[in-house]
Amino acid sequence: MEVTRKNYKDCLNTVYSAIEEADFLAIDGEFSGISDGPNASALTNGLDTPEERYTKLKKHSMDFLLFQFGLCTFKYDQTKSKYITKTFNFYIFPKPFNRTSPDIKFICQSSSIDFLASQGFDFNKVFCHGIPYLNQEEEAQLREQTEERRNQHANGVGTPSYISPSSSKGPAHIPEEHKDFINRVVEKVEALFANSEKTLDLEPCTGFQRKLIYQTLNWKFPKGLHVETIETEKKERYIQISKVDEEERKRREQQKLEKEQEELNDAVGFSRVIHAISKSGKLVVGHNMLLDVMHTIHQFYCPLPEDLQDFKEVTMCELITYTSLAELEKQLKESPFKPPQVETAEGFLSYNTAQEQLHEAGYDAYITGLCFISMANYLGSFLTPPKAYISARSKLIEPFFNKLFLMRIIDIPYLNLTGPDLQPKRDHVLYVTFPKEWKTSDLYQLFSAFGNIQVSWIDDTSAFVSLSQTDQVQIAMNTSRYAESYRIQTYAEYIQGRQQEKEKLGQTAKTWGEDSWVKPHYISSTTCGFGYPRCTRAAVHCLRKRSISPVQGESGSGEALITDGWSHYSYADSAGSKKMKTDGV
Amino acid sequence: MEVTRKNYKDCLNTVYSAIEEADFLAIDGEFSGISDGPNASALTNGLDTPEERYTKLKKHSMDFLLFQFGLCTFKYDQTKSKYITKTFNFYIFPKPFNRTSPDIKFICQSSSIDFLASQGFDFNKVFCHGIPYLNQEEEAQLREQTEERRNQHANGVGTPSYISPSSSKGPAHIPEEHKDFINRVVEKVEALFANSEKTLDLEPCTGFQRKLIYQTLNWKFPKGLHVETIETEKKERYIQISKVDEEERKRREQQKLEKEQEELNDAVGFSRVIHAISKSGKLVVGHNMLLDVMHTIHQFYCPLPEDLQDFKEVTMCELITYTSLAELEKQLKESPFKPPQVETAEGFLSYNTAQEQLHEAGYDAYITGLCFISMANYLGSFLTPPKAYISARSKLIEPFFNKLFLMRIIDIPYLNLTGPDLQPKRDHVLYVTFPKEWKTSDLYQLFSAFGNIQVSWIDDTSAFVSLSQTDQVQIAMNTSRYAESYRIQTYAEYIQGRQQEKEKLGQTAKTWGEDSWVKPHYISSTTCGFGYPRCTRAAVHCLRKRSISPVQGESGSGEALITDGWSHYSYADSAGSKKMKTDGV
Repeated sequence: MEVTRKNYKDCLNTVYSAIEEADFLAIDGEFSGISDGPNASALTNGLDTPEERYTKLKKHSMDFLLFQFGLCTFKYDQTKSKYITKTFNFYIFPKPFNRTSPDIKFICQSSSIDFLASQGFDFNKVFCHGIPYLNQEEEAQLREQTEERRNQHANGVGTPSYISPSSSKGPAHIPEEHKDFINRVVEKVEALFANSEKTLDLEPCTGFQRKLIYQTLNWKFPKGLHVETIETEKKERYIQISKVDEEERKRREQQKLEKEQEELNDAVGFSRVIHAISKSGKLVVGHNMLLDVMHTIHQFYCPLPEDLQDFKEVTMCELITYTSLAELEKQLKESPFKPPQVETAEGFLSYNTAQEQLHEAGYDAYITGLCFISMANYLGSFLTPPKAYISARSKLIEPFFNKLFLMRIIDIPYLNLTGPDLQPKRDHVLYVTFPKEWKTSDLYQLFSAFGNIQVSWIDDTSAFVSLSQTDQVQIAMNTSRYAESYRIQTYAEYIQGRQQEKEKLGQTAKTWGEDSWVKPHYISSTTCGFGYPRCTRAAVHCLRKRSISPVQGESGSGEALITDGWSHYSYADSAGSKKMKTDGV
Repeated sequence: MEVTRKNYKDCLNTVYSAIEEADFLAIDGEFSGISDGPNASALTNGLDTPEERYTKLKKHSMDFLLFQFGLCTFKYDQTKSKYITKTFNFYIFPKPFNRTSPDIKFICQSSSIDFLASQGFDFNKVFCHGIPYLNQEEEAQLREQTEERRNQHANGVGTPSYISPSSSKGPAHIPEEHKDFINRVVEKVEALFANSEKTLDLEPCTGFQRKLIYQTLNWKFPKGLHVETIETEKKERYIQISKVDEEERKRREQQKLEKEQEELNDAVGFSRVIHAISKSGKLVVGHNMLLDVMHTIHQFYCPLPEDLQDFKEVTMCELITYTSLAELEKQLKESPFKPPQVETAEGFLSYNTAQEQLHEAGYDAYITGLCFISMANYLGSFLTPPKAYISARSKLIEPFFNKLFLMRIIDIPYLNLTGPDLQPKRDHVLYVTFPKEWKTSDLYQLFSAFGNIQVSWIDDTSAFVSLSQTDQVQIAMNTSRYAESYRIQTYAEYIQGRQQEKEKLGQTAKTWGEDSWVKPHYISSTTCGFGYPRCTRAAVHCLRKRSISPVQGESGSGEALITDGWSHYSYADSAGSKKMKTDGV
């Protein structure tokens, strides 16, 4: 089901009941971009710590817009022995609620936009009919504002914001140049009281003038009038004044309040769906879900916390999550897996997995759910006697709860939301710095005596090199002692150095933070290094969130090699095996 | 004429000849946003200097995308006594040329996007079929890369980028894990030479593997083979190897070169139209043209210079510009102006000005041209004898050349590209700081003894206050001496203070700039203050580039008052009257 601003309110109950009845939910997001960082390898180094990865994604991915949200609900039907699915495709856009609401700015990444365009993504649907949303703070502020305005009206003294403290009980201060204008309005209203007309439409005027009119009329005619601002089709605003008795006046005020309340709920918009998912406590599955979860919290709840530990806490309050490696969909159709038995609920989009509609959020959520079912049922095949159907509530699945897949980290397959993260030994890893002309092949040459190595580029002049044997580390360190063109440190030395640097820079940052006017709000695309020289090493396109296959960058030597490391993490690997590889992967 | 990536190449000659034959050109751009700054008044204060305005626009407006470019050419037909127009609507999008080309990131501002959506703007046309472009540096780099690749092929030693310095004459270094793979490829090629097949398609493989294949085959089989990478519909890349004689090999290489050259021109894309406009030396008219010119240079030529003076020089090299106040269109239809005589060239979009299509770049350019004609002809009515038609080359128009309208600056109507800017006296202006609770009305109250004043908000706690009489300044200064809640400085004192601050901060900035890793690349929309508290003062929507009418912010007290100042600048004002107002405007 496609859900836009047009049919959102009509669909809401359908969405709520689909969530309520479901055994589990699958979600997926489409974004306006993935990384505004300098290049791919800077964002996802194969030897990131979970903290580093979180910090990088927070810094380089959160200013993109999550503009399509896919939700697929799965409910098991015992009699049919199959899952009944309902898929929703929500189009999301932060249309400003009114003139004082936040005017969200978001970044678009050309390669991501181009990619979605090539998949037939409908941008007009997003930008013209996307459902608005507010995070919790924005919602609270809006409710407060509305409340404040109501109190002002109830007091009948107009909006105090234009009344200086010393004169809050008297009439509004009317600037000299507006006095004639206001006097003419008062004369017209007096004439209205004298004649048989019921309403009086004033000429369109500025917001400031309208404020003055409200204040003056509230003060001069506390009873017998209903004053309202009306917007024409051309977005011009004018004031309409109606003669009313006290009962009618109250009725109209009440109507206005109800309308305001409804507009407020409309502004909260899509966030209400997220709240419903969160409240349901249902199992939520996703594919490479870390970015989806971060964006969901950032966009619909609150700014992401600085610290990974705090993120884990915020997340645990909101969503129960589980990580799967989807797009294994094809593999999961083959032995030893079994294709899941599913059926689309009546009146919902029916997907045919043979005709791929990948990169539509709803379809991706659907596929993710299918993968989950296949994998869960596969676990059932190990039971004695084997079970063909494993419920989302089964104990068998619990070990996989709250694990978010860490894409392209060699030796930490997942982020553990409910406890400490895995701490792989990295005593076979060297940190190497070298002239910027060096390529991967130079590193292979340098370490050719040590057999198979693995290179993880950090930037133009540094990389991690993983040796296959830990006892080779000391030999490498010794032979490099007199080298001039390059320098080798152990991983431990490197981490220590970074820590010291961080502490030093933390102080600098404080000094700087004192004046926010000089600090650039962002670095333009021209200056932050997307130019050719950097890109010749990084495969620009390899940042696609979905690309689970090894990156095939035309020029991506380092990248391609990194992926040799992570691509063989199968479902079984991410399933929680705590034995970490210390050999050369 | 709508021009997208699909029909761009077919249209190019039509565009070139329309420019070539034209008497003058009108241009207009539509952007993905206007300001990423904290609020409207911070971007356009009524008392900005030209330098300040330029710096603010450069800082807060250049990371948006110019995604629709309107060009309307006007050619005067003597026999018909009317202008013949040709309108082009170009859709622009920085689709990455290849995997190593820059992956442009641009910002979208929700209010601008929402506004364009409400005007029926077709975002799908931009994102799916927008014409790409390169700035001059990017173009040069791409040409260099292509050249380099050619030389490598010509030398027949493969791409040196994967050959370490010590082994550049021998075979490529093949990492251990790829040796089997490469050996199998060599065996297959040897088999190809032995059998009757003409071509051999290898399996898809990684970019790094393809490099190794190219290098190995170039070295092992310098003659008799043509090797090419082919992309499947699924974007998988594989290598095709063909047995060829030397003549055929050369022919294919030549074909490849020509294809590369064409692809390169395609990548330069829309920039070629801008180059043609620039080269033509024709008069270019625009409406509120400063942003258009800045975006055009930034996007299609080079990063904008730091300094306004340098900007003037860059601009003068590229475009001859002229400023008009368009959307006076309606007024220009009435006496003393005469509606211009125009006719649409055959085969081009015909616009009906009664059915407004404002905010389509082509239509806006067309209207701008009409306004220019009306105004130019109006000047002709003052001649003795009066002339009904004034050509774009007339001496009468020269005083208006190279003046860019400075929107919402009270006392400097235009930026002078060919000389020093106007320097209005601001000795009747006070700089006032106060608690953040203060509203415009508090300032009116404070200065109530001084008659009419004008308030230009700077931020939450400061504003310029223009008095109507310069001799009141000293009195105001004296009475404020013992004030505790607020502080008053003369404009001269304020400027001096800012200058000192700047020098101080310049030093801080240098220290900071040394480490780019810690500096945030931008401040997210959540943290840079678009929230409600700030917005209650600034009218968010008033930043629309087109809004020439006084801003009617629901809550915009300061804004609405500022505009009282600038909105009465008529065409005649911006016409170069150097007598500056020193009274209270």
